[in-house]
Amino acid sequence: MSFTIQNALIPVESGYETADVQVVDNCISAIAPNLEPAGRVIDGKNKLLLPGFVNAHTHSSEMWQRGIIPPLPLELWIAELYDFTPLEPEQVYLSALGTAVETWLSGGTSVVDHLVLIPGQELETIAAAVRAYQEIGIRAFIGPLIQDESLTAGMPAGDSGIEHAAYIRSTKATLELMETAIKQFHNPEKGVNMLLAPTGIQLCSDALFEGCIELSDRYNLCRHAHLLETPAQKQLAHEKYGCSAVEHLQEIGYLSPRTSLAHCVWLDDSDIAIMAETGATVVHNPLSNLRLGSGIAPILKYRQAGVNVSFGCDGAASNDSQDLLEAIKIGSILHNITDLDYRQWITPRQSVEMASLGGAKGLNAADEMGSLTVGKKADFVLYDLTSLSLLPRTDPIGLLILGRPTNAVDSVWVNGKQIVAEGKVTTIDVDALRRKLFDRSEWTGKRQSQTVSEIEAHYRKVMNLQGYS
Amino acid sequence: MSFTIQNALIPVESGYETADVQVVDNCISAIAPNLEPAGRVIDGKNKLLLPGFVNAHTHSSEMWQRGIIPPLPLELWIAELYDFTPLEPEQVYLSALGTAVETWLSGGTSVVDHLVLIPGQELETIAAAVRAYQEIGIRAFIGPLIQDESLTAGMPAGDSGIEHAAYIRSTKATLELMETAIKQFHNPEKGVNMLLAPTGIQLCSDALFEGCIELSDRYNLCRHAHLLETPAQKQLAHEKYGCSAVEHLQEIGYLSPRTSLAHCVWLDDSDIAIMAETGATVVHNPLSNLRLGSGIAPILKYRQAGVNVSFGCDGAASNDSQDLLEAIKIGSILHNITDLDYRQWITPRQSVEMASLGGAKGLNAADEMGSLTVGKKADFVLYDLTSLSLLPRTDPIGLLILGRPTNAVDSVWVNGKQIVAEGKVTTIDVDALRRKLFDRSEWTGKRQSQTVSEIEAHYRKVMNLQGYS
Repeated sequence: MSFTIQNALIPVESGYETADVQVVDNCISAIAPNLEPAGRVIDGKNKLLLPGFVNAHTHSSEMWQRGIIPPLPLELWIAELYDFTPLEPEQVYLSALGTAVETWLSGGTSVVDHLVLIPGQELETIAAAVRAYQEIGIRAFIGPLIQDESLTAGMPAGDSGIEHAAYIRSTKATLELMETAIKQFHNPEKGVNMLLAPTGIQLCSDALFEGCIELSDRYNLCRHAHLLETPAQKQLAHEKYGCSAVEHLQEIGYLSPRTSLAHCVWLDDSDIAIMAETGATVVHNPLSNLRLGSGIAPILKYRQAGVNVSFGCDGAASNDSQDLLEAIKIGSILHNITDLDYRQWITPRQSVEMASLGGAKGLNAADEMGSLTVGKKADFVLYDLTSLSLLPRTDPIGLLILGRPTNAVDSVWVNGKQIVAEGKVTTIDVDALRRKLFDRSEWTGKRQSQTVSEIEAHYRKVMNLQGYS
Repeated sequence: MSFTIQNALIPVESGYETADVQVVDNCISAIAPNLEPAGRVIDGKNKLLLPGFVNAHTHSSEMWQRGIIPPLPLELWIAELYDFTPLEPEQVYLSALGTAVETWLSGGTSVVDHLVLIPGQELETIAAAVRAYQEIGIRAFIGPLIQDESLTAGMPAGDSGIEHAAYIRSTKATLELMETAIKQFHNPEKGVNMLLAPTGIQLCSDALFEGCIELSDRYNLCRHAHLLETPAQKQLAHEKYGCSAVEHLQEIGYLSPRTSLAHCVWLDDSDIAIMAETGATVVHNPLSNLRLGSGIAPILKYRQAGVNVSFGCDGAASNDSQDLLEAIKIGSILHNITDLDYRQWITPRQSVEMASLGGAKGLNAADEMGSLTVGKKADFVLYDLTSLSLLPRTDPIGLLILGRPTNAVDSVWVNGKQIVAEGKVTTIDVDALRRKLFDRSEWTGKRQSQTVSEIEAHYRKVMNLQGYS
């Protein structure tokens, strides 16, 4: 399958150039003005071509709860989330489709799905997401979300002497499940990559982390986890290990150039040095960090230390969208208030590189994707620069990253296959998806989470909020 | 002109109700289920009806420079802005249309345009904006941006002994110009309201503020200004007055229930108490405050002190959009990181009230607009709840405010006149507008601002950035 995009605007060091881009056998074969067309010809006039972005951290099935969870910090928010989590694999299938559509229509071509598993239907959950991603054609990195401790263990205990229920599945059984899933679903040629993805130090034993390290080494897979999202987690790490979470993860060998870590809000300077030394990637989820009151990740410090940074939407119940351009914009300008010296601020071109090449690096895939480079996979996006939201004409990348692009994605290709054309998804029936999402849900004002009411008093106590209650 | 919207979802205290809304003679005449239809019938099924929001602070002609100004703090950013400001009234007309369209398609029905005047063509500038707003049919509050000091006076002097050029127009001539503009353009019945809007303490003398107070009292008009947007302005106020800017504005009598003040980032607790006491309104422009590195306005403190707060997009060169829903979302969740106690965080319903009734209060128009209330003007918006971005169905207001609504505005009415139907603007030809914006602009990578290169060294020195240079 070959095609040639003619006369697209592409960014070059000195500004922009008009060029043709040729694709042969799923890869970029040439980029230059006035190429002899090969295969189908696509008009790129008045359009900007950029490498596809990576939605480097999300939880697709949270889409069922977007808009409904009230303003709460992570530790209470997650209790409500799990009280109402989807329990049918068909729901997982539909929300994976929805996540892919929104990711595409905001410039993404790859998604990292830290997938919440339905208890007792773990493999069915993964199968449902795999089916969705293969049908729709997004490049998927699926990390089944695993843990081996119960929810209340994720909060600092303080002096409460609180006892936690045993987790529903043993560490050993969980690792066996992961190996089964890897054998069954890992299929990079077909666009499905499995990740090892323990949820994080707050709910995982060392044995679980170590088992994941072993599997990732044996099967050559990337590692993922949440890391120090909240002040409570920082406190918990010190209770649990007597050192920082980053020091502990380094000690047990979890950090590596194949490891990406979501959030990274509460790292101090010595933790940042460890991140740089080990080559681990930070996945920045700015909207979720604001929504849950987690804080501002020290992204400018990461960049100064040479730590790779990419962007994620995080799950749609803590965002509450899957618009990657929104996450990139806010995740770029947010840091201008953390350093008075504007020479450190992230430029729109740097944002694009973080979202594309940064995302690829965090998945150990920078040889294959993340830039418009001859030899790399044809994962790219053509933006319509005549959209009202990108007018008047100024700097196209500035408009795209700092603006609020609306209906700006004209076409998307993943692995050389066109999956959005003239702003419409071509691989699935989006109207049918809308109808199914509509039919399986209902409008509601309030709902009550039983677990939140059980654990809120403890949370307020350990976080020194009792004075406010 | 009468019409009835049937079976729309409307928010009530306990959640949502399905009701009909009847409009007679530009005002809401009834809200109840199963009304006898009057006039044209509109199907509100699967749609949410909300009062129109107020884009409570913008500078419409900045649209010509969106996406192009690099990451810079206000004091340097504004130097670049003025180096390339539009100089033709026709440009002002086109960007006012663009501002109105983007405001509507993100839930707004009113706009406060702190309008940058073309030197020597001041009345022509205002006339161009008035023409645009009347043609397109948005409710407009136009505050011509005035000052009587030159740009460099807006930075702290430190010990530099810097001399400033005289401003191009005398204080007296500026006040005469304002009176002429009021007589010529103030026409509330036709949807055009004039405001007195000195740019702020950084570039205005007391004589200018006092002249504006006199005109606002004599013609019963609202007052507007920027206030303490940056740390540099805070420092400047102390250099200039030996007290805080808020104390000084109170002393000269500028603060009142008819005064709205954009930004309000650097107020301390005693300033906040003055704001509450005088009944002035804070217009929160979160995106601009991040983009320019200005800081986070203490919005939760304002709310706790009883200060009215509304939302603005600010000009499109410091945002770089006019999407009000984006400003509302970020301006709501941003503050979750400023107070650990989540019980203080802004809920989506509170955001809606700030954006609608809060906006109306700041314009002394809460009797006429800002809520779905019988007797108020029919300024409201119908959202399509079957948009993919608002599915699955959960809490409609939560989806709208916390999500990233795309193509969600179905219909908009201003003063009882429908100006958006099925997501399309009905009063102007938006494709023709796009072509004109396209034809009058060009894509560009970099440009050099002469003024920035002249003043940057001084800025870095007074802001103690020299160590970084």
